[in-house]
Amino acid sequence: MSDIKRIETNQRMSQAVVHNGVIYLAGQVGAEGESVAAQTTAILANIDRLLSETGSSKNRILQTTIWLANMDDFAEMNAIWDAWVPQGHASTRACGEARLATEGFKVEIICIAAVE
Amino acid sequence: MSDIKRIETNQRMSQAVVHNGVIYLAGQVGAEGESVAAQTTAILANIDRLLSETGSSKNRILQTTIWLANMDDFAEMNAIWDAWVPQGHASTRACGEARLATEGFKVEIICIAAVE
Amino acid sequence: MSDIKRIETNQRMSQAVVHNGVIYLAGQVGAEGESVAAQTTAILANIDRLLSETGSSKNRILQTTIWLANMDDFAEMNAIWDAWVPQGHASTRACGEARLATEGFKVEIICIAAVE
Repeated sequence: MSDIKRIETNQRMSQAVVHNGVIYLAGQVGAEGESVAAQTTAILANIDRLLSETGSSKNRILQTTIWLANMDDFAEMNAIWDAWVPQGHASTRACGEARLATEGFKVEIICIAAVE
Repeated sequence: MSDIKRIETNQRMSQAVVHNGVIYLAGQVGAEGESVAAQTTAILANIDRLLSETGSSKNRILQTTIWLANMDDFAEMNAIWDAWVPQGHASTRACGEARLATEGFKVEIICIAAVE
Repeated sequence: MSDIKRIETNQRMSQAVVHNGVIYLAGQVGAEGESVAAQTTAILANIDRLLSETGSSKNRILQTTIWLANMDDFAEMNAIWDAWVPQGHASTRACGEARLATEGFKVEIICIAAVE
């Protein structure tokens, strides 16, 4: 099992799993009820932290999936996203609307990244 | 092509594809119209079977995506999920609401795992 | 950074990212407002093109995720999909309903593939 590394593991999920040079992150959320911009900012800070803990960074994200509880928030999320992405290192991306685990969550972001 | 192994392949999809030590599973569903608990139980049995056939197990899941047709079923799905996950080996996870291929499907689970 | 190759990169996303023999494609869409069949056809042509540019082909897709803005379009999308998939080389697949970035988009397809 030592070829798989799991971070912040509980009975339901791990926040990050590393295998064969690839890091899978759990869907990251912000604080329930906050604005889309605030939740997106918190999510991206979570991603920075988890990638740092697994020996990577936002320069090395391969695939991103974004779920918005309401697609009307697309522009508000994108403003934060676009400012955070390092120039020349943007991951692939897909964004769809999906009701999230609780009504207070407005954004959820799922990443796959490469170890440094 | 011999570096890619496909399991239960028809004209639309394969139920599992193995490449470079990583197993991708098709979105698994249960029996239409059954309860969320019953569908989740059937899905997890499918996952156990497909991972066994591809030389892996639930101890080695890297990423899980769960779609619920109705997020109100979150707790009912989680009760089955949490009991099934092997302690210390939880994958990453994201769960969103999405209407599925037919009205009778209430849960769909997509996994990426590592070969043993 | 030279172990990650990015294609058609802007400040928001790349259309394809290649790492360790695996290609991640951005969610592909067609022309807003066209029929589901026309959008699906355009998407699959985009996928063919991006896989060709990254040294792969539709014979080597590992995982596909399909989002439909309206699941009632399932059969119309599938007719195009089934005709496009090369016999014996079908990827895994999952299909869920999600409202997309703009109302005019009816289908979005996300693929992971293996380099040749």
